[in-house]
Amino acid sequence: MESRHFFRFLFLFIGLATLLLITWINLPYPPPNATDLYDCTTQSSWCTKRLNTYNPLRKPPKPTRHRHHDHSSDTPHHPLDPLTIQEINRVRTVLSSHPLFKNPSLYALHSITLEEPDKPLVLNWKKGDPLLPRKASVVARVKNKSYVLTVDLTTDEVAVHKKTDSTSGYPMMTIEDMTSATWAPLSNAEFNRTILERGVDLKDLACLPISLGWFGKKEENRRLIKVQCYSLKDTANFYMRPIEGLTVLLNMDTNQVVEISDKGKNIPIPKAADTDYRYSVQGLHQEVQLINPVSIEQPKGPSFVVENEHFVKWANWEFHLKPDPRAGVVVSRARVKDPNSGEMRDVMYKGFTSELFVPYMDPTDAWYFKTYMDAGEYGFGLQAMPLDPLNDCPRNAYYMDGVFTAADGTPYVRSNMICIFESYAGDIGWRHAESPITGMEIREVRPKVTLVVRMAASVANYDYIVDWEFQTDGLIRIKVGLSGILMVKGTPYDHMNQVSVQENLFGTLLSENVIGVIHDHYITFHLDMDIDGSDNSFVKVNIQRQETSPGESPRKSYLKATRNVAKTEKDAQIKLKLYDPAEFHVINPTKTTRLGNPVGYKVVPGGTAASLLDLEDPPQKRGAFTNNQIWVTPYNRTEQWAGGLFVYQSQGEDTLAAWSDRDRPIENKDIVMWYTLGFHHIPCQEDFPIMPTVSSSFDLKPVNFFESNPILRMPPNAEKDLPVCKAAASA
Amino acid sequence: MESRHFFRFLFLFIGLATLLLITWINLPYPPPNATDLYDCTTQSSWCTKRLNTYNPLRKPPKPTRHRHHDHSSDTPHHPLDPLTIQEINRVRTVLSSHPLFKNPSLYALHSITLEEPDKPLVLNWKKGDPLLPRKASVVARVKNKSYVLTVDLTTDEVAVHKKTDSTSGYPMMTIEDMTSATWAPLSNAEFNRTILERGVDLKDLACLPISLGWFGKKEENRRLIKVQCYSLKDTANFYMRPIEGLTVLLNMDTNQVVEISDKGKNIPIPKAADTDYRYSVQGLHQEVQLINPVSIEQPKGPSFVVENEHFVKWANWEFHLKPDPRAGVVVSRARVKDPNSGEMRDVMYKGFTSELFVPYMDPTDAWYFKTYMDAGEYGFGLQAMPLDPLNDCPRNAYYMDGVFTAADGTPYVRSNMICIFESYAGDIGWRHAESPITGMEIREVRPKVTLVVRMAASVANYDYIVDWEFQTDGLIRIKVGLSGILMVKGTPYDHMNQVSVQENLFGTLLSENVIGVIHDHYITFHLDMDIDGSDNSFVKVNIQRQETSPGESPRKSYLKATRNVAKTEKDAQIKLKLYDPAEFHVINPTKTTRLGNPVGYKVVPGGTAASLLDLEDPPQKRGAFTNNQIWVTPYNRTEQWAGGLFVYQSQGEDTLAAWSDRDRPIENKDIVMWYTLGFHHIPCQEDFPIMPTVSSSFDLKPVNFFESNPILRMPPNAEKDLPVCKAAASA
Repeated sequence: MESRHFFRFLFLFIGLATLLLITWINLPYPPPNATDLYDCTTQSSWCTKRLNTYNPLRKPPKPTRHRHHDHSSDTPHHPLDPLTIQEINRVRTVLSSHPLFKNPSLYALHSITLEEPDKPLVLNWKKGDPLLPRKASVVARVKNKSYVLTVDLTTDEVAVHKKTDSTSGYPMMTIEDMTSATWAPLSNAEFNRTILERGVDLKDLACLPISLGWFGKKEENRRLIKVQCYSLKDTANFYMRPIEGLTVLLNMDTNQVVEISDKGKNIPIPKAADTDYRYSVQGLHQEVQLINPVSIEQPKGPSFVVENEHFVKWANWEFHLKPDPRAGVVVSRARVKDPNSGEMRDVMYKGFTSELFVPYMDPTDAWYFKTYMDAGEYGFGLQAMPLDPLNDCPRNAYYMDGVFTAADGTPYVRSNMICIFESYAGDIGWRHAESPITGMEIREVRPKVTLVVRMAASVANYDYIVDWEFQTDGLIRIKVGLSGILMVKGTPYDHMNQVSVQENLFGTLLSENVIGVIHDHYITFHLDMDIDGSDNSFVKVNIQRQETSPGESPRKSYLKATRNVAKTEKDAQIKLKLYDPAEFHVINPTKTTRLGNPVGYKVVPGGTAASLLDLEDPPQKRGAFTNNQIWVTPYNRTEQWAGGLFVYQSQGEDTLAAWSDRDRPIENKDIVMWYTLGFHHIPCQEDFPIMPTVSSSFDLKPVNFFESNPILRMPPNAEKDLPVCKAAASA
Repeated sequence: MESRHFFRFLFLFIGLATLLLITWINLPYPPPNATDLYDCTTQSSWCTKRLNTYNPLRKPPKPTRHRHHDHSSDTPHHPLDPLTIQEINRVRTVLSSHPLFKNPSLYALHSITLEEPDKPLVLNWKKGDPLLPRKASVVARVKNKSYVLTVDLTTDEVAVHKKTDSTSGYPMMTIEDMTSATWAPLSNAEFNRTILERGVDLKDLACLPISLGWFGKKEENRRLIKVQCYSLKDTANFYMRPIEGLTVLLNMDTNQVVEISDKGKNIPIPKAADTDYRYSVQGLHQEVQLINPVSIEQPKGPSFVVENEHFVKWANWEFHLKPDPRAGVVVSRARVKDPNSGEMRDVMYKGFTSELFVPYMDPTDAWYFKTYMDAGEYGFGLQAMPLDPLNDCPRNAYYMDGVFTAADGTPYVRSNMICIFESYAGDIGWRHAESPITGMEIREVRPKVTLVVRMAASVANYDYIVDWEFQTDGLIRIKVGLSGILMVKGTPYDHMNQVSVQENLFGTLLSENVIGVIHDHYITFHLDMDIDGSDNSFVKVNIQRQETSPGESPRKSYLKATRNVAKTEKDAQIKLKLYDPAEFHVINPTKTTRLGNPVGYKVVPGGTAASLLDLEDPPQKRGAFTNNQIWVTPYNRTEQWAGGLFVYQSQGEDTLAAWSDRDRPIENKDIVMWYTLGFHHIPCQEDFPIMPTVSSSFDLKPVNFFESNPILRMPPNAEKDLPVCKAAASA
């Protein structure tokens, strides 16, 4: 066959295949019957069913063991309970009769969540009181304009706020935006030709929707996305098979290809073997069974209860817990019992992951824009997948489902999205033994048991494990674990001896033709602390060297702590410094202990990293909330999202940094603390083909909050209470 | 009675009491029969028996459940195994016929430990080879001079090295030094009078031996100690009842009082109730039982073995483990299995706590000298008390005993000094779930199980929990937990409103008349890394902002990693900086992965603190090893102790800082890395009367050491393998 004819046939074939795919894409989904609740953990889910027909590697997973809770009759019990399915359906009904939403093909509902009642109302509400009026907050795109709407579920009134064009940014993508984007390039013949030229079968193609940040005029006034693709050939771990340098710029509102850039024609698709991390493909002969089974066991069961699906009580703690499509997990009304008075005392009104910022460190064409803001762009909660019992969370974990909505408002259940469990690692709550010096034979030790609230968001390749860990001594540890799969870059090199000294790989050669690109992770937490009430102050307790006067002491120096109350926001823009240390307290200035110390909690940083990007670099302007590690703002219910409400393609006008620069008074006010946990990640070969978890944390710790150690009177472990176990198989 | 007569009778009584006490102190101990092995965990121990007759609060503890291993017939199997009882007795026999040791009343043996064979010999030794010649290293004081002796256990030869007078410092105190010091002041009538004037019964007196550092001429050429005392009245927690301002300066070699300073006559002894932390005194009605029993259970038992008492094998790790009177725990020959070749690969030749530095931040008379170096002054291992099963360590822990020696060389057993256990906190080794974006329903999660080696040293009031935690992914986490009891200061104040703004309390008012004084903790680790052999290099991988050229990229900046090999020691004096970050690798410059990356491990700091004291302040000169967070030195078997071999009253000539300033070459050499973990501690009321554990850690992490993720093929947890449990009481 002449090559001209060959290509004609090829194009014909591609055209037909494309048509077929477009037909698939246009299949109506989610299905029109909104009472069919689709569960994204089962293979029949609309989320995945089309894709499962596509490549033999796209097999259904093992069935998930989880509570099959029927959420259709859920009713709210607490003012902060998320919208129920019935409430979401009510919102849809109300909106369907609203003039804005007449034509279903012209709008998308980007989120439908509870509009929380005003804080004073929630603070005054007590269990048994009538529920506060319920409202929904809806973020919608209608005819390419963004809206925020409030739907009053009592009156069916709708308040509409159209986003002004003068501020940048778009709503968080819908799952439908993302999945459509992965398929849209296939309607472009040039794209398909390129894929085939790279030697990839279309059936092996896996594409990712990549938010593109904002870098200037080119991105303005169009809701865009970039798509990059991978080969699924011989592995489920397509991330390790990048079709390097090929970037498709799409208009998300039209699904039209705007531009195709291909700067990787000479870069082979990596072929590394053994990249598939699934246990089912390891083969039993390759299994590395290093460890006998280990389990956390509680013969009397767990010590926590979850009341009405969302209110958690454990040991001396209680808090409200809800899944959120953007934040993931929201912890509210966290209160701890005072061991003297028995009263529950306010600690934190609301805490959640407000935004993430993940800039990659490669300025070249196919990489410069990778500066993800996973919460506001992708939905940190939307990407939180069902947890795997006994592996993601130990025995006796309680699993909480999320109820989210599709782009047409159809509610669906994300089952097992959050788990709650008691953790015991063999650690020590407190101890003291007397030594031979004093001769008193005392040895008193108390084990440390904590309550962990966990979710794991899989934002495409990366997995973020977020833990809120409550301790009986009043401490809350917030821990972020990073696992999952690296975003890698194709390269012609298969050995470092091919790379000249001058050349910058922007990362590490991880496998033949695979570079792990250097990147940072920043996770910014909104921490609305209410220490014994809402009016609080932020105090820097600076630790500084004090030189002694001549003759004062044989010592030349010592460290002195000085309390400095932050008057305004700029006083509370904190960069951590090892050689200029401080403690950072949120105190109640109107309340002291019996000794006169202000009651407070301190934020205690752990290992972290700071963004070093140029402050004028567009990604850093958008991610300016990482310019400091700690900020404190006056409470403002509109200031929830550190990167702004409309983060997608935002230009950085509405970030925490912009709010804080207004320098408002923060002394003796309802204040919100923000903490950013950071990681620099230079990949190494151990991260290939899947990364061992790396984690870091920070603590919220009582500081003169209690009159004394609140766990003094806890009992030690006793042999008689602990379990006698045998293997389940032989039980 | 006339008051004159009253005082006469009082003095007579005190004199008689003092004589009686002196008689007690001079009772010969340890008993002469060296085959009687005294176990410091039982109430009959010589360590404590005198004191137990003294105050009803000095009650024997509950019996310890531990293996009653008879160590009298122990034999060494590994070149690094500690000296056995038979070997120690051999050392005593050899020394007893040596001219230096003719008069038992004129010498004290401060330590008798294995003199490890030369490193190349140990590296070449394989299991099954004949044991290398055994030698003991003895630190002794004879007629007030310090000696280091080597006793060859094959030839009975003794090599004697007298410490030159030109360098400062004395050996680590013996337990007998410390206990004698606590009683010696009672032979001084002025002291006893002062105690009674303060309203304390002598039977309620508890005194502590406090190392006094070095501040100038006054301390030179005399082995001194300071003693401060507390009241045991109504509480076992005498630490909360300081007899403030009273300091006795003692000559440790003569037990004579040199000077008594009393600047606290007007400061009451604090009377706070509820300071006793023992469970037995809490009363059941006050018990706070918040949590159902939780246990780590392993139906098939633990997965590690301890061969010949000291060689640990677990999962893909093996290492040698021994108790040491000074360092506490010594981990040697740590090697990890390469999953591809199956070979055991060298990671660390030797790791241990080299020194601690704990400066208090109060320059006044009774406090300025409190700048403890707990390893070299008190013996971090000598102070490691028996661990409490089920509380200090979970079920299935293995307990290792220490064999230490009394001042006359008598060996004794410190049982349960180290525990080894597998920990599972419900955490995740690695995970990945596919999101709805890609539609592949993958959810693969592996639990994270680690092996922990733990000891807990009670250096008088403070408890240090030191964990060496091994992970299957090759990571070693070294974690230090701080618990125990604060060193507090008496004060006339019982409310902060009595304290003027100008006044510096040097700490926090914790209870009526009790101040918790600000202090730091530094724990310096000796990490003799051998990455695939001894010849290694230290590489700083600096992470720096790189600005792009005009037109190069829409990005203005990115982070670039640059490798800088340290040529000499000064290149490796590292102060950590958040805004000038780096990774710190120990690599093998002669070995690369198949891709050409140098194989290495990196030290990954976590939360830490740096000493801010004046570099010329005497305590900081002695603690100069904390001037940097990381140092690297060429291997030198005499450079083990970061504060110097003779730390007690040292002037700082023999510290890590002095060695490093010689600026020796360290590239492609056998090198030792040193890492200092730091804490600033501003006490708070929650630390009263006993502190909830605060911990921090750092990691040694493989970086291009393995060709890929070494735990890719580990299986997930399965229901059938996990235990079915019931409470022991009902079993």
